Amino acid sequence: MADENTVYIGKKPTMNYVLAVVTQFNSGSTDVIIKARGRAISRAVDVAEIVRNRFIHDAVVKDIKIQTETIPAEGGGSANVSSIEIYMSK
Amino acid sequence: MADENTVYIGKKPTMNYVLAVVTQFNSGSTDVIIKARGRAISRAVDVAEIVRNRFIHDAVVKDIKIQTETIPAEGGGSANVSSIEIYMSK
Repeated sequence: MADENTVYIGKKPTMNYVLAVVTQFNSGSTDVIIKARGRAISRAVDVAEIVRNRFIHDAVVKDIKIQTETIPAEGGGSANVSSIEIYMSK
Repeated sequence: MADENTVYIGKKPTMNYVLAVVTQFNSGSTDVIIKARGRAISRAVDVAEIVRNRFIHDAVVKDIKIQTETIPAEGGGSANVSSIEIYMSK
């Protein structure tokens, strides 16, 4: 799946990301991946649920994957952070 | 699956919940469900990843479900909150 079908969740308001996912679906995509790390994981779940319940009623959550990513820490060393990938399709 | 195999994630330190899940597995359970709502969802993912990577290496994430729960809001009315269920087994 092309990277253009992926919506990365950051610190902006939840509805910004909802709009991004809805736009993907409405522009012809049948699959959208929502990705998030750390504390943004909760927001990623909110985004998927809001898209499904309020905007794209025939969209379903096809699969959810979680994993641990190792990222460079400030001041050297590395830190582990959890990540989530939510696969939606319609 | 009995409710005793379910670990509810709240606002305590992550390792408290990791210990609870590890204890479940080490006391003979082959399946443990990790449940969380709202902002605790990120912590639930952390708990599953830490259990799997550091403590119970043969544990796997079998399934992950997300949904929306409607809870009574303060001052009347109701609010929607996302929730997650992470099904682990070994």
